[in-house]
Amino acid sequence: MAFVSFRRADGSTSFGTLDGDWIVDLGAAPGAPVDLKAAITAGALATLTSDTHLALAKVTLLPVLPNPGKILCVGHNYESHRQETGRAKVDHPSIFTRFADTLIAHGQPIIRPKASTDLDFEGELAIVIGTGGRAIAEADALSHIAGFACFNDASVRDWQWHTSQFAPGKNFPGTGALGPQLVTPDEAGDLADVHVVTMLNGDVVQDQPISDMIFPLAKIIAYTSAFTPLAPGDVIATGTPGGVGAKRTPPLWMKAGDIVEVTIGPIGTLTNPVADEP
Amino acid sequence: MAFVSFRRADGSTSFGTLDGDWIVDLGAAPGAPVDLKAAITAGALATLTSDTHLALAKVTLLPVLPNPGKILCVGHNYESHRQETGRAKVDHPSIFTRFADTLIAHGQPIIRPKASTDLDFEGELAIVIGTGGRAIAEADALSHIAGFACFNDASVRDWQWHTSQFAPGKNFPGTGALGPQLVTPDEAGDLADVHVVTMLNGDVVQDQPISDMIFPLAKIIAYTSAFTPLAPGDVIATGTPGGVGAKRTPPLWMKAGDIVEVTIGPIGTLTNPVADEP
Repeated sequence: MAFVSFRRADGSTSFGTLDGDWIVDLGAAPGAPVDLKAAITAGALATLTSDTHLALAKVTLLPVLPNPGKILCVGHNYESHRQETGRAKVDHPSIFTRFADTLIAHGQPIIRPKASTDLDFEGELAIVIGTGGRAIAEADALSHIAGFACFNDASVRDWQWHTSQFAPGKNFPGTGALGPQLVTPDEAGDLADVHVVTMLNGDVVQDQPISDMIFPLAKIIAYTSAFTPLAPGDVIATGTPGGVGAKRTPPLWMKAGDIVEVTIGPIGTLTNPVADEP
Repeated sequence: MAFVSFRRADGSTSFGTLDGDWIVDLGAAPGAPVDLKAAITAGALATLTSDTHLALAKVTLLPVLPNPGKILCVGHNYESHRQETGRAKVDHPSIFTRFADTLIAHGQPIIRPKASTDLDFEGELAIVIGTGGRAIAEADALSHIAGFACFNDASVRDWQWHTSQFAPGKNFPGTGALGPQLVTPDEAGDLADVHVVTMLNGDVVQDQPISDMIFPLAKIIAYTSAFTPLAPGDVIATGTPGGVGAKRTPPLWMKAGDIVEVTIGPIGTLTNPVADEP
């Protein structure tokens, strides 16, 4: 199954299942959870139903999880990206964080801030946590996944590199694209051979199979939950393949009018225009 | 004025002003904001009143802000600490983040996790944001401060240094002590010559004036608000002086049974025992 969060034509927000060009508005059912995070928390994704159908074209998608409690991001998790960044090999995933107010939806513009022109793309597979926990064993970790989504960890590189810590370059508003949909693990199937493909204005700029991750999904969940409790709806962005704009000669920065797409086989395609900060 | 957040004897939570051994229970007044963050958001700190007085000894203090939307921390912001860590000079504050679920109150134990013995102290001055904003000008920045509190940015050093990114070592539960009270700027007065003093089991282990900060408070607020919107109740921990346990020979780690205190003149003393994770 695939789930979306959206704004109805009347301005109210809801969530539902996506079926082609139609949405089953699960939030419209009596007694429904207030949002997708609440539905995940209730363990109700598989059982919710609704008689209300809306045309996808008549709603505005929201970030697939608009309000995660935590967003954890893994840096340098593909060998090709580790090498292009000149980072040393490490024995643990490199973890930084985003605030939820950086998130934008499929279709919304990624914002190039006034403070910088060095806006880069990072196509990634995002995990959404279903069952929370602390110190989750690697062997059990995959059972804690509610589903997957595409993520564009758009990065303001000069601010990311002001010091050793990445937070400034990873937390400008309008830089974390998450969507279009949450795909459940059964629907996603085996992702090992699926590629994370990023296209900028129609050109492939990143393309690598998920099996090339240095730290696989189960390891990432086990490691992060060792230091911080994971809760339903938490998002983990699992790292980007090589090919980022910053490491090209000359650098390839995103600018107003560009279109960036992140495609991950059964997880879908996340498309965002780029716009300047007003 | 000085404000605290607390749990009443009946288990309910509230906030109020601290006056010696008594608390004015501002949350008990009809129509009061639900918590200290809501009171700050409403701009009501100076005007709230209540007829309900509680003995300080009869309540349990909470982290002075139990639920900040964002916790931003500045690394290496005293020259003595920059030098002991061997970090290069940088032109901008080094910013990392904490999740709010790491916070503990004055009196609550700092938790040494099962995963490590390398638990270190970091006494710091914390800013609590009063008026939010984005791209706040340095000249206006101090007017955005609701007040100050003591902070102990207790750090699990081996996890902090697993990779270049600090998040894992800074986000174990029970490692962010914030309190005991929020002191308003008028009550705090000029802090330049006030020292941040950390004592471990009665021995002074850190002691340096706030004027020794590399990036002063206004600069920190201007820089952080340039990349992320600040909101009422957000917390900024402004960095720790030299003297941390990790850089001593041999290292001085905190262990169960220790008592650690952070004293900052008019801001008060934050005292925490240390306990092992159960």
